[in-house]
Amino acid sequence: MSVYLNSEKPEDYLALVDKYDTWLFDCDGVLWRGDSLIDGAKEVLELLRARQKSVLFVTNNATKSRRNYKKKFDALGIEAHVDEVYGSAFAAAVYLSSVIKLSKDKKVYVIGMSGLEEELKDEGISFIGGTDPADHTLLPPQDEIPPDPSVAAVLVGLDTAINYTKLSKAFRYLHSNPECLFLATNEDSTYPSDKGLLPGAGSILAPLKYSLGESRPVTAIGKPNSVMLDCIKAKHDFDPKRTIMVGDRLNTDIQFGKGGGLATLLVLTGIASEKDLKGPTPPIAIPDYVTSSIGDLRVLGEQA
Amino acid sequence: MSVYLNSEKPEDYLALVDKYDTWLFDCDGVLWRGDSLIDGAKEVLELLRARQKSVLFVTNNATKSRRNYKKKFDALGIEAHVDEVYGSAFAAAVYLSSVIKLSKDKKVYVIGMSGLEEELKDEGISFIGGTDPADHTLLPPQDEIPPDPSVAAVLVGLDTAINYTKLSKAFRYLHSNPECLFLATNEDSTYPSDKGLLPGAGSILAPLKYSLGESRPVTAIGKPNSVMLDCIKAKHDFDPKRTIMVGDRLNTDIQFGKGGGLATLLVLTGIASEKDLKGPTPPIAIPDYVTSSIGDLRVLGEQA
Repeated sequence: MSVYLNSEKPEDYLALVDKYDTWLFDCDGVLWRGDSLIDGAKEVLELLRARQKSVLFVTNNATKSRRNYKKKFDALGIEAHVDEVYGSAFAAAVYLSSVIKLSKDKKVYVIGMSGLEEELKDEGISFIGGTDPADHTLLPPQDEIPPDPSVAAVLVGLDTAINYTKLSKAFRYLHSNPECLFLATNEDSTYPSDKGLLPGAGSILAPLKYSLGESRPVTAIGKPNSVMLDCIKAKHDFDPKRTIMVGDRLNTDIQFGKGGGLATLLVLTGIASEKDLKGPTPPIAIPDYVTSSIGDLRVLGEQA
Repeated sequence: MSVYLNSEKPEDYLALVDKYDTWLFDCDGVLWRGDSLIDGAKEVLELLRARQKSVLFVTNNATKSRRNYKKKFDALGIEAHVDEVYGSAFAAAVYLSSVIKLSKDKKVYVIGMSGLEEELKDEGISFIGGTDPADHTLLPPQDEIPPDPSVAAVLVGLDTAINYTKLSKAFRYLHSNPECLFLATNEDSTYPSDKGLLPGAGSILAPLKYSLGESRPVTAIGKPNSVMLDCIKAKHDFDPKRTIMVGDRLNTDIQFGKGGGLATLLVLTGIASEKDLKGPTPPIAIPDYVTSSIGDLRVLGEQA
């Protein structure tokens, strides 16, 4: 059962903050929506920092590198440091360099955008595809796509320049080589863009999953996969028992937190609503705490 | 259990031909592969016609209209008439005009190619999208996509110019309007192109199925759906008990024939192999008859 926090009992928020030293935040739907800050988010982050809490940002958005992401925080006036930002693009690059330990003579075929390429470059991973002009076409493949044993992995993220040639190349590399790894930055079904809700990274991945069939499972690096937490652990020392994950999605954020043995706080400013917790279908993950908005934690300031 | 036919018992082929008056043929993998005729296919079709058999061609390929398809037969030197050709593009158009009876003030948003557009025009169905230059872009949507209640259906077929703007429009029309029909020409996972095996129509559909979720089922018009058979029945009088479907795929051709109460003959010149019938996983549909190739029926000529 979840504990529902509300502003009529401000002492509950104080007790919550005392229990956890490390605060992991999802961003979209928690701190902002598109280009608009959630009311009170900036102030709450400042209050947590003032209490010496570690603040980290954990996002499945793989279209931006950590450096791009930092610019988004700057633009919204939120304090954030590049080493506090964990995106699924970064996690995918670290997975390839540190978990898979991709050999230097191998490369990755990428469906994704420049943010993903930037993280791969930073980790020293060779890749083809991505934003390569040769694959930026609305024509189908003009020649047979030869197998390439040097392509040791196909990595798929949200790519708004997705096309049939990219899908065909990724399909052929995977289909012709059973050893080729099949990776995705994340499987979010939708993407809350500033043009409204649009198909997400999982939708860009779906054609390959469908054409390859169930015998070819994909490893999705982002939340709820534990790879993301392993990445954070490798860089930050924290006690899972004194760490809380704050998010707006049950099937990514809350499941991720629970899988990693962290406490979880659901906010209702994004995807999940009270209906998802109390509706006829049992929720995929039950958060430890629920509050209407991250802004509710502003009561911390009033008690300081 | 399937009856295996082979050239050591030519009388089995004669008995088969005597039992069935109407012969439905899948094309790719049965009569040809890419641009190459299967050895003996032309001769066998001529022998069936000489015996006064009805010959019809039933294909899930929705990139070609029936008229385009006729040109392919001509190029390969096979006798075929437009009214003998049933494609999933034609079936989708007939479904909209005759089953759904789409009102004249409504239109369809199309993901697909000119062959699909041609069939919709022939049936008097208004549509947007398709090969419209406005949607032929590798840029993501530049503006919010407004709901359009005049879009009464989204119809998805194989489209080698698929892009994020097309997927986003289709997603928004379906997501913003629970009444909007969600249709596909077919769900073939792969497409045997002359450049090798590539992602099929089902793969173009997969991003929408994934982003909309399981609560939004799709109606796939092509084989194995019975809509295709209803289309044929509307134009040709035949007795299902004296009709046989010849195909190379268990999950489309054979399932289609069995669902319609037809006899079924599997040829091993395309997708399905003997392993699929005898392997550890039970086959999705068991054909009544199996032969290595349509060319095996040439024995008819030797007995004439």
